[in-house]
Amino acid sequence: MINRREFIKKTGLTGAGLSLMPEKIPAYLGRKDDRKIRLGFIGTGLRGRNHLELALRRNDCEVSAICDIDPQAIEHSLKSISDFGKAKPRVFQNGEEDYLNLLSEDNVDAVVISTPWIWHVPMAVHAMKAGKFTALEVSGAMAIEECWDLVRTYEETRVPLMFLENVCYRRDVMAILNMVRKNMFGELIHLEGGYQHDLRHVKFNDGVRPYGGGVEFNEKGFSEARWRTNHSVNRNGDLYPTHGIGPVAMYCNINRGNRFLYLTSMSTKAKGLHDYIVNHPKGGKQHPNAGIEFQLGDVVTTMIKTQNGESILLSHDTNLPRPYSLGFRVQGTKGIWMAVNKSIYLEGQSPQAHRWESADNYLKQYDHPLWKRYEQDATGAGHGGMDFFVFHAFIESAKRKLNPPIDVYDAATWMAITPLSEQSIANGGQAMHFPDFTKGKWMQRENDFALADDY
Amino acid sequence: MINRREFIKKTGLTGAGLSLMPEKIPAYLGRKDDRKIRLGFIGTGLRGRNHLELALRRNDCEVSAICDIDPQAIEHSLKSISDFGKAKPRVFQNGEEDYLNLLSEDNVDAVVISTPWIWHVPMAVHAMKAGKFTALEVSGAMAIEECWDLVRTYEETRVPLMFLENVCYRRDVMAILNMVRKNMFGELIHLEGGYQHDLRHVKFNDGVRPYGGGVEFNEKGFSEARWRTNHSVNRNGDLYPTHGIGPVAMYCNINRGNRFLYLTSMSTKAKGLHDYIVNHPKGGKQHPNAGIEFQLGDVVTTMIKTQNGESILLSHDTNLPRPYSLGFRVQGTKGIWMAVNKSIYLEGQSPQAHRWESADNYLKQYDHPLWKRYEQDATGAGHGGMDFFVFHAFIESAKRKLNPPIDVYDAATWMAITPLSEQSIANGGQAMHFPDFTKGKWMQRENDFALADDY
Repeated sequence: MINRREFIKKTGLTGAGLSLMPEKIPAYLGRKDDRKIRLGFIGTGLRGRNHLELALRRNDCEVSAICDIDPQAIEHSLKSISDFGKAKPRVFQNGEEDYLNLLSEDNVDAVVISTPWIWHVPMAVHAMKAGKFTALEVSGAMAIEECWDLVRTYEETRVPLMFLENVCYRRDVMAILNMVRKNMFGELIHLEGGYQHDLRHVKFNDGVRPYGGGVEFNEKGFSEARWRTNHSVNRNGDLYPTHGIGPVAMYCNINRGNRFLYLTSMSTKAKGLHDYIVNHPKGGKQHPNAGIEFQLGDVVTTMIKTQNGESILLSHDTNLPRPYSLGFRVQGTKGIWMAVNKSIYLEGQSPQAHRWESADNYLKQYDHPLWKRYEQDATGAGHGGMDFFVFHAFIESAKRKLNPPIDVYDAATWMAITPLSEQSIANGGQAMHFPDFTKGKWMQRENDFALADDY
Repeated sequence: MINRREFIKKTGLTGAGLSLMPEKIPAYLGRKDDRKIRLGFIGTGLRGRNHLELALRRNDCEVSAICDIDPQAIEHSLKSISDFGKAKPRVFQNGEEDYLNLLSEDNVDAVVISTPWIWHVPMAVHAMKAGKFTALEVSGAMAIEECWDLVRTYEETRVPLMFLENVCYRRDVMAILNMVRKNMFGELIHLEGGYQHDLRHVKFNDGVRPYGGGVEFNEKGFSEARWRTNHSVNRNGDLYPTHGIGPVAMYCNINRGNRFLYLTSMSTKAKGLHDYIVNHPKGGKQHPNAGIEFQLGDVVTTMIKTQNGESILLSHDTNLPRPYSLGFRVQGTKGIWMAVNKSIYLEGQSPQAHRWESADNYLKQYDHPLWKRYEQDATGAGHGGMDFFVFHAFIESAKRKLNPPIDVYDAATWMAITPLSEQSIANGGQAMHFPDFTKGKWMQRENDFALADDY
């Protein structure tokens, strides 16, 4: 089922041999090939279907297989596929292990994994072992060992994994990346980001609609409430670090000349989710969920120190009423950008000394080449268009059989923040050190993220 | 000279007896008295003269003594006093110990200490021992033991100390305090503040003007450059925490039902000051100061955990080009305010769900009674008027001989952040625990800061 033996036979390479070839892509992956990518979708809930639609809109993708344990998710997916006039894919819906059968399909070149967090790593590991170019939705790891699982499997198989961190492709984020690379902020000193998103209506619903309308979760909830909320019940840490850390990691070349050294995390008390249940018209003090002691602090703050001496501040803030904000800040020896006030200050360039100016003109002037080229294609794609770009990069990497711009080392490094922050909090703020998942390769690796306008 | 023996004889109380009287003010201090306060100014540099002018504008203050080692500072002060038509004070300018002679003057009821940081605690200790109601300018401590020095001396002498943290009286800060006390943010969860102020032109000057014009400091510098910059050369920590922590501490009742438990700090590399020297027209790579290795990281970030479960984020950011911002954020179970985008969100009250609205109307509607009453008096006082209020509170407390609203325990607790952050950074981000300077009294103490419109 896992097919690793056959995969190795085909490539003519052994796992041991491969792991000794740093950064060199095996021949079978390096060959140019412009044919359609035949895709398998593992997980076709709301997020999986976002990706599915992006595939259906492209003429270089074929949807050959879909997999979900929820019949409704399969049904919605088949309808979309049919609405787009595309051929019906093979369907895998026979329980939680049926994705392994999808992975053994010969007519699947690549898979997109959009499942509950605890399935991400096991599925990605099996997908790489099955020789499928793997696109993995974002999450934090459950344990550091999961990060090593990803890296080890990649180094054994050399099957690329792309981590689908869409915020790396947000328009303002990319314009700022452009400016960072032009040295407009000087040497980077301090960066901030985070996930500040009131998820109370995501963590609780009425079991029918995905957002709000009740205070149910787990088996009585629907969509993310069915599985995501349980992490807030049982875990305390930065559970969702990648939207904040992805862009920041690209700004300061993490795993490409720089790396994370250590972090410390701090958590507040947990009040927001309980209050939401108690004050909700369908909740109240007598509701069984009112008795739950949520472990997740309402605000979790993490500081990360890098090898090159920058500090990074990450925020996780999902249980309180607040406007959405990823809270980006990029600060260097020549200036500073902040997302929350949409402002910038560049010494010698901003019209007034010590005064913010609107970032708008800069964001337009330094619009990233990718956005200039693909603006039309991105229109209508999820999350303000950025979903188009992350999917595009995955497909173009898969077509070229090249290591993707956000790869397995990024996935491991960014996902590691979650268990490290849990450990730091559990130990009263103790500094926790990052493993070097690249085993020294960060010193040679070059940044190939969004260098031009192709993908 | 120190006069403690005489002080104790006068009050009829021994140090030992006093320290067993928690929170009870000795009789001589409790007596109502509306006479003028006769003031001694220790340190009459730029900051000292701000306070001096505030005293000269009041008819309940008399300036009976001034002290500085810099003849120019004395000269400027005497001119101001004369310009206001006030009597010439006694002058103490014979070296660094002459302030002790000022403290032995009988016609000095209270002193204002505005000297270089390393003098703050020794001078305040001597002032309390001399029975002078003590107003102390803000700084961080050099060592935790300094904080105990303040507390121990107060508990032995019962002579009140007011910590001159003016930002507690900033108009927006006080309006938000008003809202916090009306429970408009619900239960507080996370707070932020800091000192984000490009001080490069303060840390370096031409030795003549206080701000900019050169890259000199220490004996070749003038004003703050003469002593403050040296801390950036030799220390790495949050060197100036009180403007950020003061307002936040009042919001969450630190030392009044709540207390700081521990902190972790992180520092970036130090680039900004070196770059400033190298790139300055009067500096350059050959300038002797270009060879200095500054210890102070350009951005120092500190997280503090409180007994009641809030987290507090403090920033110290003084070496880079950036707009001034104390970066306040107040976040609770019902809403959030941020200073940097001048915005607020209150659930069920803000017009659009999940959308910021301008804080302006709230700041007007909940303008603090003190500001409503004293707006005219504050006009023209330093730092947007807030200097008036902090000085006013000091004088009114001194007249009433009551413990001031920002007292010795606040001074000790807030100043402790500096050495604790230095220790945390030196130990790779280790959590450092706060001493309980109140020795348990935080559980009973009540907040008497700005409760009404008198002071």
